[in-house]
Amino acid sequence: MTVERVEFENTFAVLLEDILAELPTFNIPSEGAAWVKECLEYTVPGGKMNRGLSVVDTLRSLRGEHATITPDELHKARVLGWCVEWLQAFFLVADDIMDNSKTRRGMPCWYRREKVGNIAINDAFILESCIYRLLKKYFRQDDYYVDLLDLFHETTYQTELGQLIDLLTAPEDDIDLNRFSIEKHRWIVTYKTAFYSFYLPVALAMIMNGEKREAAFTQARNILIPLGVYFQVQDDYLDCFGDPEVIGKIGTDIEDNKCSWLIVQALDRASAEQRQVLHAHYGRRSAEDVEKIKQIYCDLDLSAVYHAYEEKSYAELCALIDQADANLVPAGVFTKFVAKVYKRNK
Amino acid sequence: MTVERVEFENTFAVLLEDILAELPTFNIPSEGAAWVKECLEYTVPGGKMNRGLSVVDTLRSLRGEHATITPDELHKARVLGWCVEWLQAFFLVADDIMDNSKTRRGMPCWYRREKVGNIAINDAFILESCIYRLLKKYFRQDDYYVDLLDLFHETTYQTELGQLIDLLTAPEDDIDLNRFSIEKHRWIVTYKTAFYSFYLPVALAMIMNGEKREAAFTQARNILIPLGVYFQVQDDYLDCFGDPEVIGKIGTDIEDNKCSWLIVQALDRASAEQRQVLHAHYGRRSAEDVEKIKQIYCDLDLSAVYHAYEEKSYAELCALIDQADANLVPAGVFTKFVAKVYKRNK
Repeated sequence: MTVERVEFENTFAVLLEDILAELPTFNIPSEGAAWVKECLEYTVPGGKMNRGLSVVDTLRSLRGEHATITPDELHKARVLGWCVEWLQAFFLVADDIMDNSKTRRGMPCWYRREKVGNIAINDAFILESCIYRLLKKYFRQDDYYVDLLDLFHETTYQTELGQLIDLLTAPEDDIDLNRFSIEKHRWIVTYKTAFYSFYLPVALAMIMNGEKREAAFTQARNILIPLGVYFQVQDDYLDCFGDPEVIGKIGTDIEDNKCSWLIVQALDRASAEQRQVLHAHYGRRSAEDVEKIKQIYCDLDLSAVYHAYEEKSYAELCALIDQADANLVPAGVFTKFVAKVYKRNK
Repeated sequence: MTVERVEFENTFAVLLEDILAELPTFNIPSEGAAWVKECLEYTVPGGKMNRGLSVVDTLRSLRGEHATITPDELHKARVLGWCVEWLQAFFLVADDIMDNSKTRRGMPCWYRREKVGNIAINDAFILESCIYRLLKKYFRQDDYYVDLLDLFHETTYQTELGQLIDLLTAPEDDIDLNRFSIEKHRWIVTYKTAFYSFYLPVALAMIMNGEKREAAFTQARNILIPLGVYFQVQDDYLDCFGDPEVIGKIGTDIEDNKCSWLIVQALDRASAEQRQVLHAHYGRRSAEDVEKIKQIYCDLDLSAVYHAYEEKSYAELCALIDQADANLVPAGVFTKFVAKVYKRNK
């Protein structure tokens, strides 16, 4: 684990204490404070923290190798990083209820814990509110405070719209592949994942670094959104073709009727007969159904399609970065991301 | 219906259109835009709108009878009023899921509608996000924009903490009256209802009116929170003793195991035997159980206790208003509220 990862992880305890320390000022009954503590400890840490760490990494890239970042600035970048993680916790707690999921990060989902259930809906709200408690505590005096608030609001709304279309496109109990398409997959991925996972952390670091030029944010978005889509396509591919030992989970996108990159590519390429098989067996829970789908993925050679897509996306992203104006955003901000994402197998 | 009520009601269509008109700029698939439209039309209007109207009323009181309010200012006050209504819609959609409620405002709860179900959780998030879309559209240029954001965040968090304690105190499936107390009832009511229903609308009008003095907000809070508690105690009383024809619903607080003012007063006064009856029959669904509870409420003469409470609260509120510094907040802001609330029977 890198030094920054350790420092970042340690910052969580400070922020948890910030949230808990003010609860007595509300005179909240003690069982409420205990509940909030347990919820935050269970749902916020424990992820890969890539999104949160991106804020710190980006601030370093923006400053350049030799410029100094004060300890206070570093702490503030970590606070913003944790706010992204908190935002994700808010989404995941709620998504798990809506998707009727069983486990998350190798543990039972928060709402599945004893005595939690639908209280988890209100807990998700509290997770979101914590973001604004932390932003207020650490950034209220900064001239860019309002820009942080606007960005979190905008990103939250985009993600909610993405989740809405995902829910309408692939409801668990009403399988209809006619709602799936390559374009809709791309839209869902852009809104549900790319904005908050890729654009948000970079834009937060830019704001903290004093960036005010709209063109700089547009440039970041124009590169980070396609990068985020590429990342999610990998995720969809690895869910089916990745090594469970390496990715740390057994994929269930086929059983879960997910609007995955693989199924939209398959539908785009399938013969009339293959299409019938896809319609008959997608989104079903039995191993035989899943096998039928995977067989068509193999018959259509989706692995090759994926690898071609990967090469093409990589070349396109490199071209975008090459063409970008380094006076707006240094190329290093993007190349670090691409290096982390390209040809990953987990 | 008053003129203002009509104007206020008409403003909803404008704000709905604001939200819907920008969805195409996100390229959202059409079924998503249709869904958002249906959800907003179903969940936001249709209430009594007292909270929203309070913003406009308060702005008028702050300006005084003869001062002018420009049409633009009036529209902005109505926008803030609708933001309060939107906040309430966000809470109610979610609360109805958590409470497993059947109807709201005489219609099936949103989550009970066909094809909605748990998607309503994400819809609640979208309702909340609309507040920040509207605030940004109408107030981004104002120096007090950031104060509006901070106030909505703070009030949202307070309400969520109130809802948390309410859920922990009176879970539907685990009846334990030992968790109830007069103090806890007051805390829940303060946080779950009084801040967003009474303090928020007034504070929004004060912010819009250019108020910057912390003491003015403190004074408003010191009067409006007790007023909000008094209002909720009335609500609790009317749920059991009000005329269903007049209040427009049949109360079910006893069946629903609610931490109501009546049960905490009863527990405070009950003999050992009466206490046993309360424990044995509260929170049960049968008419016989409910009758046993109501009998004890009558035996303890809670109607008289309530009327004495009402007189005492009224006197205390009047004293608070008398003692208040009219240079901070004109007394008219509060007296209008008290006049509306005192001895209401619906």
